[in-house]
Amino acid sequence: MSQVSSTLETTVTKLWEDKKYNTLRDVLSTMQPASAAELLAVLPENAPAPLFRLMPKELAAETFVEMEPDMQEKLIRSFSDTELKGVLDELYMDDAVDLVEEMPANVVKRILAQADPEMRKSINELLQYPEDSAGSIMTTEFVALRPHMTASDALTSIRRTGMDKETVNTCYVIGTDRKLMGAVTLRTIVMAQDDDTMESLMTTNVISVTTQEDQETVAHMFSLYDLNVLPVVDKENRMVGIVTVDDAIDVMEEEVTEDISKMAAITPSDKPYLKTSVFTLYKSRIPWLLLLMLSATFTGMIITHFEATLSFSIALTAAIPMLMDTGGNCGSQSSVTVIRALSLGELHFTDLVQVWWKEVRVALMCGVTLAAANFIKLILIERVPPLIALTICLTLLAAVMIAKFVGCTLPILADKLGFDPAVMASPFITTIVDALSLLIFCTFAGMLLTGAVA
Amino acid sequence: MSQVSSTLETTVTKLWEDKKYNTLRDVLSTMQPASAAELLAVLPENAPAPLFRLMPKELAAETFVEMEPDMQEKLIRSFSDTELKGVLDELYMDDAVDLVEEMPANVVKRILAQADPEMRKSINELLQYPEDSAGSIMTTEFVALRPHMTASDALTSIRRTGMDKETVNTCYVIGTDRKLMGAVTLRTIVMAQDDDTMESLMTTNVISVTTQEDQETVAHMFSLYDLNVLPVVDKENRMVGIVTVDDAIDVMEEEVTEDISKMAAITPSDKPYLKTSVFTLYKSRIPWLLLLMLSATFTGMIITHFEATLSFSIALTAAIPMLMDTGGNCGSQSSVTVIRALSLGELHFTDLVQVWWKEVRVALMCGVTLAAANFIKLILIERVPPLIALTICLTLLAAVMIAKFVGCTLPILADKLGFDPAVMASPFITTIVDALSLLIFCTFAGMLLTGAVA
Repeated sequence: MSQVSSTLETTVTKLWEDKKYNTLRDVLSTMQPASAAELLAVLPENAPAPLFRLMPKELAAETFVEMEPDMQEKLIRSFSDTELKGVLDELYMDDAVDLVEEMPANVVKRILAQADPEMRKSINELLQYPEDSAGSIMTTEFVALRPHMTASDALTSIRRTGMDKETVNTCYVIGTDRKLMGAVTLRTIVMAQDDDTMESLMTTNVISVTTQEDQETVAHMFSLYDLNVLPVVDKENRMVGIVTVDDAIDVMEEEVTEDISKMAAITPSDKPYLKTSVFTLYKSRIPWLLLLMLSATFTGMIITHFEATLSFSIALTAAIPMLMDTGGNCGSQSSVTVIRALSLGELHFTDLVQVWWKEVRVALMCGVTLAAANFIKLILIERVPPLIALTICLTLLAAVMIAKFVGCTLPILADKLGFDPAVMASPFITTIVDALSLLIFCTFAGMLLTGAVA
Repeated sequence: MSQVSSTLETTVTKLWEDKKYNTLRDVLSTMQPASAAELLAVLPENAPAPLFRLMPKELAAETFVEMEPDMQEKLIRSFSDTELKGVLDELYMDDAVDLVEEMPANVVKRILAQADPEMRKSINELLQYPEDSAGSIMTTEFVALRPHMTASDALTSIRRTGMDKETVNTCYVIGTDRKLMGAVTLRTIVMAQDDDTMESLMTTNVISVTTQEDQETVAHMFSLYDLNVLPVVDKENRMVGIVTVDDAIDVMEEEVTEDISKMAAITPSDKPYLKTSVFTLYKSRIPWLLLLMLSATFTGMIITHFEATLSFSIALTAAIPMLMDTGGNCGSQSSVTVIRALSLGELHFTDLVQVWWKEVRVALMCGVTLAAANFIKLILIERVPPLIALTICLTLLAAVMIAKFVGCTLPILADKLGFDPAVMASPFITTIVDALSLLIFCTFAGMLLTGAVA
């Protein structure tokens, strides 16, 4: 896809330079909003604003939604008030809210001034919901039907009001108190007899969430129940909005990026990598590096401590990197597997014993294999004295067992205690496992080798 | 959600023991298919089959789709031929194919025997598509309309055939040669005048994929273009099926799990963790551990090699774990950030120089901070001789720079060469960075300390 865009980029730049504006409008009209936004972003500084004006109104608005915030800001600053109002009128409510959340204060002021009163009211309401809640990602535009309406009433109502709604594929049946009574799909209404009432057509076991629900849970429900849209209600079960599947997918991607960042000991950011400043990247990485570096010095202290009683031969020192790396790798395999299972909802705290039993057996199998391979290598290839080889391989087995145990336990405990289990991935597990395996190494060496090796 | 299910579990088990079958049917009828499947899975061995028979036919089929393969197999084995046919008739084509792919050969034979001839033909066709292609995840059931049909013709056609289609929200306009001409939503048809033709109502710039397209690309298009459904065409642009958003979400989750597994050096599996046998887990982990253990011995060889010219003081040895861990952590921060940006399509090979320039500056800032913090600690707290502290801190700075450079470069190169960049995460980066930083450490120690320390 990026190859297609770069060819288009050349074409459009050329058309722009040749001032072939009508051709440009026709070319842009063939494109998907996301592609158009991508294209405008790579054109010369002065091109996007006039090109944007050439685009059909609806496509222009949809393209606007797909742009990066800095591009949106530049465009808004170039808009006249009438132009701004034109774009705002085409936006769905949730997109308008996203926009307001991203823009600096003076731009927000202009946007709220140009939005029609109803939109202004809705934006202000939506902005009140906590970040990352269902309320903050929902749109307030849905089709509400009454229980006594017949299928033909409903179709008339949808024809009259449906144009401005984000979806009409699922409509909601609302009582006089605005309470959510049921859902009915456009398909059902179309298939029904003209005089069937909504009350008789609707399904009543509708899954809904409250405005306060965490967006990650919301996204998870879309995947679990194969939803296209999910109604949002307030504490009194009054219907206030809907979350659509495209917004749920955005949340899923955001949450995965967040998890993966945490797994690599990075403070998550929701900005694309290339748009993130060097200083922001530095700030998101350095605290963890400092913390982990300090913890790693404990491992060094263990070496210093045992030096008094135990003089390390070079064969023992040379084994330290292998022991540390293998322990770390074993630990992250277990922790990452468990973290992913937790975030897919496949695993819960109550499964802890089952996880232990599984991981202990896997650890034993892995540990024995690795220790055996290593023993053969040490004896046959490196011709290390058997006692030293034994020390190294026993340590390896113990390190693997401990690493897998710690690796599978910490994420589950973190989850139970309300922390994000993703933090308990490679870096932390590695640091803990390193210290533990070095401790075992020195103890074993002390027991098996004291006095025997210089 | 799992708390709700465990209460329901108790209720349903009790009702089952008390033989209150009518109540049970009513309770199950209130539930979502995914919840019902979850519930049946935790009940006593002999309960699911009879309970399944109590459920309303359509809910039963939907619940069946949500079950784990081993549960499905058990149920199928308990079904009479008529019962099996009843369930199969209710399945959408893509779900039927999933089922056939999961079942052992003798069960598949029974399924194909009971499926109606049209379904059997479709299943066989779909099974031909390569695994992980658009063809393998699509369903062949979509609403096809003709260009000359009027809105009222179209509604009649949808009413007649739409009941069995996975979605009617988007219909496709197909020429006489079965070529995809355009798409028209049910909403547009409902909003239109009775005599508007499909040709005039349809949008013609429809995004489609071929049957051979990789499922990861398909899933990525849903997210990029905010799609609910995506038409699949053959090489001659003849329409053969659709992929719906719920299947795209499943693919997204599967691909993320795969990426995360690879990042932790595990061969990916598409089975849930608790359902995976110990031996399968062992097999997916041990080759990587062995490979990485062998590579880590190079690091040990570096120590052995330099021992000849350089006798390590305990202060130097004690610094090895800290140097290795910090280098590894810095490298995985960069690699994981870049891997995620690649998989979201934010980053391409052409951005390599820009990534380098960014990472080099971040690395310099992180390296200087870490080295300074460490220098202060070594001098003030551990009272290490200044030359040794300098050696350690210069190595640290160099290791951070190298780690970030290697960490951001390897995933991009792997992607360019057609490998999965996710493999270039923590474990491999750590192994490479360990060896490089130890090499630098020994070189610096040789240059700065020769003869000075015993």
